[in-house]
Amino acid sequence: MKVGIVNVTGYAGSELARILYLHPHVELACVTGRSGAGQRLDEFFPHLSGIDLMIEPELEDGLDLAFSALPHKASAEACIPLIEDGLKVVDISADFRLKKADEYEEWYGVEHPGPQYLEEAVYGLTELHREQVAEARLIANPGCYPTSAILALAPVVKEGLIQPTGVFVDAKSGVSGAGRGLSLTTHYSEVNENVMAYSVGGHRHLPEITQELAGVAQTPPQVTFLTHLIPMTRGILNSCYATLTPGRFGSWQQAHEEIRQLYTDFYADEPFVEVPASPPHTKHTSGNNMCLVYPAVDKRTGTLMVISCLDNLVKGAAGQAIQNMNVMYGFPETTALEGLALYP
Amino acid sequence: MKVGIVNVTGYAGSELARILYLHPHVELACVTGRSGAGQRLDEFFPHLSGIDLMIEPELEDGLDLAFSALPHKASAEACIPLIEDGLKVVDISADFRLKKADEYEEWYGVEHPGPQYLEEAVYGLTELHREQVAEARLIANPGCYPTSAILALAPVVKEGLIQPTGVFVDAKSGVSGAGRGLSLTTHYSEVNENVMAYSVGGHRHLPEITQELAGVAQTPPQVTFLTHLIPMTRGILNSCYATLTPGRFGSWQQAHEEIRQLYTDFYADEPFVEVPASPPHTKHTSGNNMCLVYPAVDKRTGTLMVISCLDNLVKGAAGQAIQNMNVMYGFPETTALEGLALYP
Amino acid sequence: MKVGIVNVTGYAGSELARILYLHPHVELACVTGRSGAGQRLDEFFPHLSGIDLMIEPELEDGLDLAFSALPHKASAEACIPLIEDGLKVVDISADFRLKKADEYEEWYGVEHPGPQYLEEAVYGLTELHREQVAEARLIANPGCYPTSAILALAPVVKEGLIQPTGVFVDAKSGVSGAGRGLSLTTHYSEVNENVMAYSVGGHRHLPEITQELAGVAQTPPQVTFLTHLIPMTRGILNSCYATLTPGRFGSWQQAHEEIRQLYTDFYADEPFVEVPASPPHTKHTSGNNMCLVYPAVDKRTGTLMVISCLDNLVKGAAGQAIQNMNVMYGFPETTALEGLALYP
Amino acid sequence: MKVGIVNVTGYAGSELARILYLHPHVELACVTGRSGAGQRLDEFFPHLSGIDLMIEPELEDGLDLAFSALPHKASAEACIPLIEDGLKVVDISADFRLKKADEYEEWYGVEHPGPQYLEEAVYGLTELHREQVAEARLIANPGCYPTSAILALAPVVKEGLIQPTGVFVDAKSGVSGAGRGLSLTTHYSEVNENVMAYSVGGHRHLPEITQELAGVAQTPPQVTFLTHLIPMTRGILNSCYATLTPGRFGSWQQAHEEIRQLYTDFYADEPFVEVPASPPHTKHTSGNNMCLVYPAVDKRTGTLMVISCLDNLVKGAAGQAIQNMNVMYGFPETTALEGLALYP
Repeated sequence: MKVGIVNVTGYAGSELARILYLHPHVELACVTGRSGAGQRLDEFFPHLSGIDLMIEPELEDGLDLAFSALPHKASAEACIPLIEDGLKVVDISADFRLKKADEYEEWYGVEHPGPQYLEEAVYGLTELHREQVAEARLIANPGCYPTSAILALAPVVKEGLIQPTGVFVDAKSGVSGAGRGLSLTTHYSEVNENVMAYSVGGHRHLPEITQELAGVAQTPPQVTFLTHLIPMTRGILNSCYATLTPGRFGSWQQAHEEIRQLYTDFYADEPFVEVPASPPHTKHTSGNNMCLVYPAVDKRTGTLMVISCLDNLVKGAAGQAIQNMNVMYGFPETTALEGLALYP
Repeated sequence: MKVGIVNVTGYAGSELARILYLHPHVELACVTGRSGAGQRLDEFFPHLSGIDLMIEPELEDGLDLAFSALPHKASAEACIPLIEDGLKVVDISADFRLKKADEYEEWYGVEHPGPQYLEEAVYGLTELHREQVAEARLIANPGCYPTSAILALAPVVKEGLIQPTGVFVDAKSGVSGAGRGLSLTTHYSEVNENVMAYSVGGHRHLPEITQELAGVAQTPPQVTFLTHLIPMTRGILNSCYATLTPGRFGSWQQAHEEIRQLYTDFYADEPFVEVPASPPHTKHTSGNNMCLVYPAVDKRTGTLMVISCLDNLVKGAAGQAIQNMNVMYGFPETTALEGLALYP
Repeated sequence: MKVGIVNVTGYAGSELARILYLHPHVELACVTGRSGAGQRLDEFFPHLSGIDLMIEPELEDGLDLAFSALPHKASAEACIPLIEDGLKVVDISADFRLKKADEYEEWYGVEHPGPQYLEEAVYGLTELHREQVAEARLIANPGCYPTSAILALAPVVKEGLIQPTGVFVDAKSGVSGAGRGLSLTTHYSEVNENVMAYSVGGHRHLPEITQELAGVAQTPPQVTFLTHLIPMTRGILNSCYATLTPGRFGSWQQAHEEIRQLYTDFYADEPFVEVPASPPHTKHTSGNNMCLVYPAVDKRTGTLMVISCLDNLVKGAAGQAIQNMNVMYGFPETTALEGLALYP
Repeated sequence: MKVGIVNVTGYAGSELARILYLHPHVELACVTGRSGAGQRLDEFFPHLSGIDLMIEPELEDGLDLAFSALPHKASAEACIPLIEDGLKVVDISADFRLKKADEYEEWYGVEHPGPQYLEEAVYGLTELHREQVAEARLIANPGCYPTSAILALAPVVKEGLIQPTGVFVDAKSGVSGAGRGLSLTTHYSEVNENVMAYSVGGHRHLPEITQELAGVAQTPPQVTFLTHLIPMTRGILNSCYATLTPGRFGSWQQAHEEIRQLYTDFYADEPFVEVPASPPHTKHTSGNNMCLVYPAVDKRTGTLMVISCLDNLVKGAAGQAIQNMNVMYGFPETTALEGLALYP
């Protein structure tokens, strides 16, 4: 099959190219860029020197599927004509993730360019929506934070094991999540040897988390979501906190064991979610498509902690997009995503 | 006055020497080391090349005050004879922080070498115990995590503005907090480009936090405390989460404003605590003695977030020790601690 | 074919496992470890969770080839019986790299455990010794520094274009080159935000560089080699300096162009050496097997600069070892080494 | 005395403010900024929260001295009217460093705004020009690279101990040297876990190095200068290479000892240059005004290596500027510069 990448010149775009390079069933036939059009791809990105393509202003005809790695709004504007031309589309931007256009406008501050597609678009967290992904022509690929937060909380939310108020997601992200665009927040000397909270008034990834957890919940939880920037390039680690539903467990020790078993069972058949025996490190996922989810109960207070991590550019973006493509086309879900993490 | 440092050869010890070098009223007369005894101090630590001292096996006589930067247990064993010899002592270890010997033994796994001193020792969080510090002969200098967590939560705990359950402290620490001793956890290639939670089963700094918050609380809060290691050398940032007491505020917006005013007032006269206008960065405290405390209310859920940060080796260790010494001897509290943070 | 890894528990050993995991013609049948024997491999190294092996005390029988990732001396002692049992061996340690046993003893301070194998062993810099590698039963896999330094200088040394004195190799290395063993030099807080020269009196990789350049030279160059540790995990970048042979070039501009053409031609058929158009970054090789070599002439002084870089654990260790194995067994040389670099 | 800072809003400017805050004889009376005019200084730079000043569009009247931290050309344009108004000026930009206007135009690509001041301006490397600094009204504060390179080579160049050709300065710099302006080169995800050479065709700091070494040399050396960016914020380390003059030393061992003695003597009275016993780390100078210079002879090849390091924002910029001001006004040269380095 032939695929294209719209806006290969950012970090998610180039990561798509890196992974697709090893995909045996896919020909990366065309790439476009907001910057760099007219340049050779391996001149723009020397690490992609094995790929012989020019950065084009527009996608060529004859593609089966397009990935869009444009920013929000621009992405929807680019994707809609592609869908209407009959391509399948995996959109890495936020444009088709929220089901409600007014919620989109509240958080992104712009009118939605194609609200008629919101109902059809499938939220591409493969682990929750695999069957719809298989049938979809438009995938809204999840945000990096939501992927790890939703996978961390879905089992207990679904089972009604936590109280719906007082749910906290404390997220720590590497800097590549902010993209390749320049800003003081991503200026080396400001980030290095530093940690800070940002978007304290509310981060745009919150409504995705809420929407998807509501989808599996008996009582939708109210989540407080606080994001932090830490001095590393790749990786997100979430620490999620909640209070266990009273009366459900014989003791907090039992709660700990039952919840660990619940998670192990919940993700038993998932190739890209693992419940490790010890607290996970982002480094254990560097460059690969795994999400590690580690639940534990604080036996002093009876509260739940779930630690989850992933590589924001792989399972949090390009890898998950290719996982979705694999499901859409009936390839083995792990195709091109078999590589182990780069450690140390 | 003449002071000595017991175990100058770790990071807290060398930081004491660095700061005392600029203290106009103090002569650093003697330093000892578990490693390095017999070496020149400036050979062991080239950055201390302005200080002309040998690393001795034992403190010399004639000192007024000793700082101990030994690990727990060894520190109490070294401090007790000094106190009995009439010196004042500021102990940077954990040995005299907890008021109950059995709690110490539970968390530290050793019998306390001098439980008879626990009552007398003053917990040296100057902002909470300034008057007792002034009179003390034995200061238990607080841990780096507790300093920032207690200062973050004390105002709302004291005023009864948060519910006592469901209180979470998510702490992110640089690596120097783990000291100069070697371990895989502090091995460069393991830490760099990585973030992880550790001590998930319970961190030794928790009982200090609980003890001190109980001291100011109407109803002592139950705190879940989770620590993370992030790839930087200096700095701790805590994000604290709690649910506001129902019915105390007209709206969450009012709650936000009232709580920010409460913090501003609470710390108005403190030279080393600031309530900044925007979320703080650890880099804003690098090398100096400030603790920055930033409260905010999540207006969607009515929960409180308090972000606090400091330099773990300064306000979290050596700087606070010298602040305490200044109070004990009636020097201006900021003496030798006036320097601004090293940025960027 | 079935292969084993002796001492999988260091960084080179685990990198071998990571890469072999994707090799279609190789079964990784057995791994041993100096630490960790008796543990599951994926418990010891969570990033290797796709590999279902125990860490054994000894290699099992029936292997075709063994990689040794032991430290020097221990490696030769382990490899010799394997060779005598009929296995092929790729030794990542330094033990069989130097042709002269007395030179080995001078630099490594121990008697060589098997000097009778020095003549037979093939120095596994594939680009220089491909034909002998194909026939070898014992490969001395090159050091990380020598790989990049020799590839940087071989073309001009072979052509006699630089003067043999006043040749300098200034090497900057990430910390993983020092291995997983603990030392103050690899302690996070010492390395981070720091750069230093080390082994100023002479680094053990110098004699390899000298030996191999002498092998291609008309007049063997005298190299001064200075190594630096910089705060990153993976990667080595060398800047090599030399004075051009007088009278060989019409102008320094012509020298620049001719030398760039020489390098491009010299490496035209090499899958893992590239002469990029702009100065290379170590990040362009992260996790893959490329060595980038960039020559330039300082037109003010008529001196040559050659900048080269690679990933010390891949082209500088495990990747090169697998490249050699591919050549030994007639597999396409790039098998399992096709992956692009992990950027950013 | 009253001083002002022109363009406090960059890294050199804010570092001036940080250091001057502790200067007992100086009132920082006014600061200006290209960005940020109209804001409070402690709002723009939270780490400067002890300084109560607005960022003004223009310097106020009544100052004794101004520091300029503007970029080149803009700086000269701002400094010239100040000099003509009778202020003394320390210019941190490159504008008055080169004695020849045509050389300035060649390297900086702009016409010099005030060539008539080039003769008068004193190159403010205090160690070489202390007497002229004391009398100066216009100081051209040296670049960060030249400070460390010139101090590294001046002793052997002055004594004629190295050959004038084949002199190499390999410089490794932290990122803050590139300033606070945004660029892809200083974007966190590009710099972290990376090292690269840049300005391979020639760096603007070369002519300063050449000019000043020519000033002390019998035969001016021809220097090849190559700069590298490494993933840290502060610090520069240079490794300088040269060939010793034949026939001057009995043996290379004697050469080593005599040259070490030469350096020790040369800098014996300098408060800010030290010749340490072991190879220096940039971390040993973090935040303070020291330059560490370590010469060694490669006894295999008879070549000289000199390693030097400093904090590029202190001895390489703001600290040196204040050192010069101290000399100009007869204050003890170390005033406000006594602080030890921040380690680890």
